[in-house]
Amino acid sequence: MKQSMMLIPTLREVPADAEIKSHQLLLRAGFMRQNASGIYSYLPLGTRVLQKVEQIVREEMNAAGAVELLMPALQQAELWQESGRWYTYGPELMRMRDRHEREFALGATHEEVITSLVRDEVKSYKKLPLTLYQIQTKFRDEKRPRFGLLRGREFIMKDAYSFHSSHESLDQVYEQIFQAYSNVFRRCGLDFRAVIADSGAMGGKDTHEFMVLSDVGEDTIAYSDTSNYAANIEMAPVINTYEKENEPAKELEKVLTENQKTIEEVSSFLQVETRKCIKSLLFKVDEQYVLVLARGDHEVNDIKLKNLFEASVVELASGEDTKEILGCPVGSLGPINVENVEIVADEAVRYVVNGVCGANEDNYHYINVNAERDFKVSRYADLRFIQEGDPSPDGKGKILFAKGIEVGHVFKLGTRYSEAMGATYLDENGKAKPMIMGCYGIGVSRTMASVAEQFNDDKGLVWPANIAPYELHLIAINLKDEVQASLAEELYSLFNANRFEVLFDDRAERPGVKFADSDLIGLPLRITVGKKAAEGIVELKVRKTGEMIEIHKDDLLDKIKELLPTL
Amino acid sequence: MKQSMMLIPTLREVPADAEIKSHQLLLRAGFMRQNASGIYSYLPLGTRVLQKVEQIVREEMNAAGAVELLMPALQQAELWQESGRWYTYGPELMRMRDRHEREFALGATHEEVITSLVRDEVKSYKKLPLTLYQIQTKFRDEKRPRFGLLRGREFIMKDAYSFHSSHESLDQVYEQIFQAYSNVFRRCGLDFRAVIADSGAMGGKDTHEFMVLSDVGEDTIAYSDTSNYAANIEMAPVINTYEKENEPAKELEKVLTENQKTIEEVSSFLQVETRKCIKSLLFKVDEQYVLVLARGDHEVNDIKLKNLFEASVVELASGEDTKEILGCPVGSLGPINVENVEIVADEAVRYVVNGVCGANEDNYHYINVNAERDFKVSRYADLRFIQEGDPSPDGKGKILFAKGIEVGHVFKLGTRYSEAMGATYLDENGKAKPMIMGCYGIGVSRTMASVAEQFNDDKGLVWPANIAPYELHLIAINLKDEVQASLAEELYSLFNANRFEVLFDDRAERPGVKFADSDLIGLPLRITVGKKAAEGIVELKVRKTGEMIEIHKDDLLDKIKELLPTL
Repeated sequence: MKQSMMLIPTLREVPADAEIKSHQLLLRAGFMRQNASGIYSYLPLGTRVLQKVEQIVREEMNAAGAVELLMPALQQAELWQESGRWYTYGPELMRMRDRHEREFALGATHEEVITSLVRDEVKSYKKLPLTLYQIQTKFRDEKRPRFGLLRGREFIMKDAYSFHSSHESLDQVYEQIFQAYSNVFRRCGLDFRAVIADSGAMGGKDTHEFMVLSDVGEDTIAYSDTSNYAANIEMAPVINTYEKENEPAKELEKVLTENQKTIEEVSSFLQVETRKCIKSLLFKVDEQYVLVLARGDHEVNDIKLKNLFEASVVELASGEDTKEILGCPVGSLGPINVENVEIVADEAVRYVVNGVCGANEDNYHYINVNAERDFKVSRYADLRFIQEGDPSPDGKGKILFAKGIEVGHVFKLGTRYSEAMGATYLDENGKAKPMIMGCYGIGVSRTMASVAEQFNDDKGLVWPANIAPYELHLIAINLKDEVQASLAEELYSLFNANRFEVLFDDRAERPGVKFADSDLIGLPLRITVGKKAAEGIVELKVRKTGEMIEIHKDDLLDKIKELLPTL
Repeated sequence: MKQSMMLIPTLREVPADAEIKSHQLLLRAGFMRQNASGIYSYLPLGTRVLQKVEQIVREEMNAAGAVELLMPALQQAELWQESGRWYTYGPELMRMRDRHEREFALGATHEEVITSLVRDEVKSYKKLPLTLYQIQTKFRDEKRPRFGLLRGREFIMKDAYSFHSSHESLDQVYEQIFQAYSNVFRRCGLDFRAVIADSGAMGGKDTHEFMVLSDVGEDTIAYSDTSNYAANIEMAPVINTYEKENEPAKELEKVLTENQKTIEEVSSFLQVETRKCIKSLLFKVDEQYVLVLARGDHEVNDIKLKNLFEASVVELASGEDTKEILGCPVGSLGPINVENVEIVADEAVRYVVNGVCGANEDNYHYINVNAERDFKVSRYADLRFIQEGDPSPDGKGKILFAKGIEVGHVFKLGTRYSEAMGATYLDENGKAKPMIMGCYGIGVSRTMASVAEQFNDDKGLVWPANIAPYELHLIAINLKDEVQASLAEELYSLFNANRFEVLFDDRAERPGVKFADSDLIGLPLRITVGKKAAEGIVELKVRKTGEMIEIHKDDLLDKIKELLPTL
């Protein structure tokens, strides 16, 4: 493609409002433009990258036995009412009325549409399993669209749904799609982790998020420094490797700690390590109040607390409730002599010897506190967040933290939708049963932005060859020089004839402008035709490494074929 | 692809509400399902056809020098207010508000978005011409969605827009895209005509519609029986080949024609051919009343009338207005002695000798009327609809009529949008000028339906090989027979290895069901493995012709390679 025919509006300045690298560079390099908050046009280069990501997704989904279809964006309200999500999805679901005042949602996701389709068309276990996917535009009215394509309001997603007559079949397809997703993100060149995630309100069982490691990610991942293990920080269990200190239990004592409220204040005032302080928090777990204990250097994980009680809602009690129930402010809570609420504790609390805790009385703490001797706990459990340095839950290595961008999600839905919407099949005995479902998403436009976020330098983008908009950037220093112009045209034809994807900068611009644009756009290889054109010698530049090679045109194709697969 | 993994829900019954063949068959053969009125899901087979049409469109658009991009469906109201179409588009434009109560349109077309994009990014004549296209989902809230994909509310379109600094450049790109469109529809196998169309309110000059010939089409095309000439019936000029009858002018006479009002009644009552009757119609042309004359066997074409007067609105005067202005009912109008309104006439009226016309008086007509002698006409012009049998306007052959489905439209927009939205460029002298634009659309989903409409028989669909969902349908009569099963698997691998697209019916269904489904789906070639499997002999069936060939497996690939390009 000749650059003069393209629309690649590069910018020298960093656009205001673009906070992160990928957003800045996709704008600066002319890959996209904003139309409205969270809504973008993909310009020709961006469109090419999108299509390459889509093609990789298609190939891997097809290889996993999934079949492509295409569902509409306009979805009747009735379907969302059947599933109940019309009432629970909130303002993120964009809604509208047609000319006959019928209500529609703009598809934020397609569980309802696909479930109704399969419900109507599939009646027998003989037609299961069935895995369907689409690549389609989604609409979500994000409260705060930001980071360009990372959190937009109109975006491109690959969403897949599988239907089964047994959990074993779901497990098998889940595993295949898990593998397909790993392949997709690997082929896109991404540094990612498949992370154990929270199945949340969806009621499913297994769920993994595919996270691209990046400082701009909104989620924290706990991962092993030696194994594949990775989990959303909320989900990582803590292995009990605590040991009691080798120190005799001393006598319980109440001491004055005037105005010392936080763990840090108390530990500093009493000259005790925070790990010896016992943190006491009053939670409201559904309708019950529970005093939760953890070590001062640990943080209580309310998802684990929620799971322990199989509760729907877990929240910290208010100061007022605390005062009413335990007779003291939040900063003075402790477990000793507390009998009117259940006490649960993180495992680590059991191992604290001669610890410190609040006395349920302003300005006083107990010292030399020992669990079981001085207070009773109804249940010990893993109730805290994992921390960097903790042993990895799979027993291999230690935990490190990283930030991640969610680019994919695989989820065992179970019968959440099939039961609500009556999607049943007849089993071998002619008995109607709800289909067991899985759902699987990839953020296609978000994947593109994630690659831009991971692959750039101070000059611009650095596309991996697999999804670069073109493989080669051909530049002539001076197109008015007939020798250069003729060699450039010769190479352009040569590359096209050999099915390389080449962008030929045929613009009447200064070489400096062309080079700067080329670095900004970030195609894997640049071929510059300059002064040595008469000798048939050109310059080959590897964008990723900056390496420059002078090479004769006759050797060019071989060199390109050698380099591209490594980029 | 193995059919057991697909979702191809075929139906034996013709679905209620599906009036036309393509709609019925695309439903029956499991290519699509309706989600809501005018809104469809494309099932796996339909998705494959769509993608093939899209790929053909891409190849031809790229070859024409157009560059692909992708614009959003959500479009800010402000853009449509700039162009003015927010106020004029009517309820077909679907509108909604986001969570911040900002108004949006769901893209029915993208003139506004692309004009604003190019306005912001292109400033100099040096960057022109520029032709951009996208393949994208469009939304139009049709009053009466019908005929399946032919008139839907959510549909897939390829829309392209070109920007120029001269009309010559626009002419050139128009011509290239015209050619690209011809190629697209030819490659889809369609019988179509590029039809001269009405530029209507858009204010452009040249415009052609690409019409697929079909009885279910909503437009009438006038085309030559010998040349390429084709025009929308409203647009076809009538060549003046009239001759005066060789008959002496007789004396004007007023006769009683009691209760005879229509041309047919009068001609029958007076025993005169309708072609000798002069039809008089009172029109309101903008604010002016005009009496329009035409021969009794001709119909007045109000678009030609509108163009003659360069008017905005042309409509028949009401009975009341007619009474007030000419003192008689509509059925008695005539030109004689009329002096208070302008009289214009179709060319043919000039050649009527001893004609008949109304007397502006109930129950009376004039006979032996001769133009110029008996009444004055301010202007003669071509004011009638062309008719079958008329000479073709290009001078080659005679006119025939056909119905057409509009699948494409090319249009010289001129500066309609660039002026309204301030999309200017600086010319060679640094002077700001509005960009000259063209726009070009192809209904992608409608093209698919048009092919289904043109290619079917009483057994089902008959896809042209270029856009068939698969090229080959492989069927084994009895998969429990090991010899048949093994040969079928062998052929399945062979076809895949040779990059043929094959659908393998591996379902445990009776042969009759498989054959009926196969005919319904309509892949170009069917390969049936049956009793002669042991001898390596299979049956090859050509869907289009019904031809059956017994063939040895070793000769199969060659035969398929020979047949496919002809289908």
